[in-house]
Amino acid sequence: MKLNILGCHSATPLENAHTTSQVLEIKDHLFLIDCGEGTQIQLRHQQIKFSRIKHIFISHLHGDHFYGLVGLISTFRLLGRTADLHVYGPKGIKEIITLQLKLANSWTNYNLFFHELEGKESELIFEDDFLKVKTIPLDHRVYTNGFLFEEKMGLRRLNKEKIEQYNIAHYDFQNLKLGKDIVLEDSTELINSDVTLDPRAPKRYAFCSDTVYNESIVPIIDEVDLLYHEATFLDAHENLAEKTKHSTAAQAAKIAQLANAKRLVLGHFSSRYRDKSDFLKEATPFFEAVDLAEDGKSFDI
Amino acid sequence: MKLNILGCHSATPLENAHTTSQVLEIKDHLFLIDCGEGTQIQLRHQQIKFSRIKHIFISHLHGDHFYGLVGLISTFRLLGRTADLHVYGPKGIKEIITLQLKLANSWTNYNLFFHELEGKESELIFEDDFLKVKTIPLDHRVYTNGFLFEEKMGLRRLNKEKIEQYNIAHYDFQNLKLGKDIVLEDSTELINSDVTLDPRAPKRYAFCSDTVYNESIVPIIDEVDLLYHEATFLDAHENLAEKTKHSTAAQAAKIAQLANAKRLVLGHFSSRYRDKSDFLKEATPFFEAVDLAEDGKSFDI
Repeated sequence: MKLNILGCHSATPLENAHTTSQVLEIKDHLFLIDCGEGTQIQLRHQQIKFSRIKHIFISHLHGDHFYGLVGLISTFRLLGRTADLHVYGPKGIKEIITLQLKLANSWTNYNLFFHELEGKESELIFEDDFLKVKTIPLDHRVYTNGFLFEEKMGLRRLNKEKIEQYNIAHYDFQNLKLGKDIVLEDSTELINSDVTLDPRAPKRYAFCSDTVYNESIVPIIDEVDLLYHEATFLDAHENLAEKTKHSTAAQAAKIAQLANAKRLVLGHFSSRYRDKSDFLKEATPFFEAVDLAEDGKSFDI
Repeated sequence: MKLNILGCHSATPLENAHTTSQVLEIKDHLFLIDCGEGTQIQLRHQQIKFSRIKHIFISHLHGDHFYGLVGLISTFRLLGRTADLHVYGPKGIKEIITLQLKLANSWTNYNLFFHELEGKESELIFEDDFLKVKTIPLDHRVYTNGFLFEEKMGLRRLNKEKIEQYNIAHYDFQNLKLGKDIVLEDSTELINSDVTLDPRAPKRYAFCSDTVYNESIVPIIDEVDLLYHEATFLDAHENLAEKTKHSTAAQAAKIAQLANAKRLVLGHFSSRYRDKSDFLKEATPFFEAVDLAEDGKSFDI
């Protein structure tokens, strides 16, 4: 699993500070998370193949998180896309996009599905054989969700040494991976756990932007491998964070600590701060494994 | 009068090829013409003061001409704008913008006026003491207008030599500028035209994008000082121009020739052409005073 930051700044796009957008590579998917103005240019800049994006998750309907969506949808059309596109976002997103496509007389030549969200509890919004995506209800000025991306438990792994020792045939591999015991040709019975290893621990990534400090998300993101949490402000503006329903770096770190996350990435920085290292300084007393997001940076999970 | 090209490419924004947007400096106004995605970044890049933009003219509702508008309107709000903003564009533009502001729960803290256009004949849409703006009905796949910006005839200019010769007092200057005759203290009667010069010829700029070859606009743009005309395609793709209701470089030049324009600027280039000099080559046989638009370039009028 790999997270690519396309933009991680709040409010308005600047030449070298793009608004929120991320690409998560997970189990052959490229999930686009939020889509601020100019996201399509950032995608090209990072040489991400447009056609691989089939699912877009929009946290909320503030411009710095979705004003690039309609342009991306239009560009997909101009590029001759044929693959389905699924957009997950707050109720209203379908009306915004379809109104613009209708007035432009430019409906997509691919299937465009909207999955509008209005739930106030965490809900499962995507599932396939390998992973699940759930919402993380956040507390912001408008209806907002974070998203939890979690791999499913994989198959058991063959213990190569034992496979050779017992000279196990290929046709037994799948049953072993599925956890079944097997009987060899010489009638030897093999207990599954004697010749296999536990599956690799499934990875989990939680995206939480935008939100005021909100401990109620902790059980949902419990022990995630990577938590991206917004940190719009520093301590000096904690009042402003409260008022605008954003978080400070310290608050984001406290959430990571409470959730026992393995790693924290801060983002959604206000442009008022020149020196981003202060975000690290104020977060580390509460949570050590913290990084700052940066446009163009990636994180292996 | 000065035209600043922020973007002049068609279809989708690329890192070094921005979609249509221009700023026209005219009589203390900064008029923004079209507003493709990323226009606000281009405005910052060219250090154009956001607060000076009070009128935005949108030709049509294709994304490459207005997807940057909602972001710019939002940024104006975040920057604490108080001045009124007037947006002129096709019917539907108000619904698109207000729907997004409503769902973001972020109405502007300044007055935002929409002037929706549906006329099929050229009409006056803006006028003050010094200039007029009229629509230029274009023929494209959706309802589209170009815009004609014209200065009004100014005041007569004082002939400095004569002013000194007759020792004319300051308090007579305004009457002379207004074209009145005056009587000096020694009872000398002065005919206005003996001591003043004709007003400077008013300048006119016509913006025509997007449109198929359409001679019916010629009377409206007759003898303009500068004509910006779209040239999406080269001759090799004239069929495609016809089909998509765009123009070729040669067709744009023919319009400039028929209108007896003083100067032509081509833009809205398709990204399929690497070498833009071919646009010049194909235009000059029909019209000599032709330039290519370029992101960041300006033209004095």
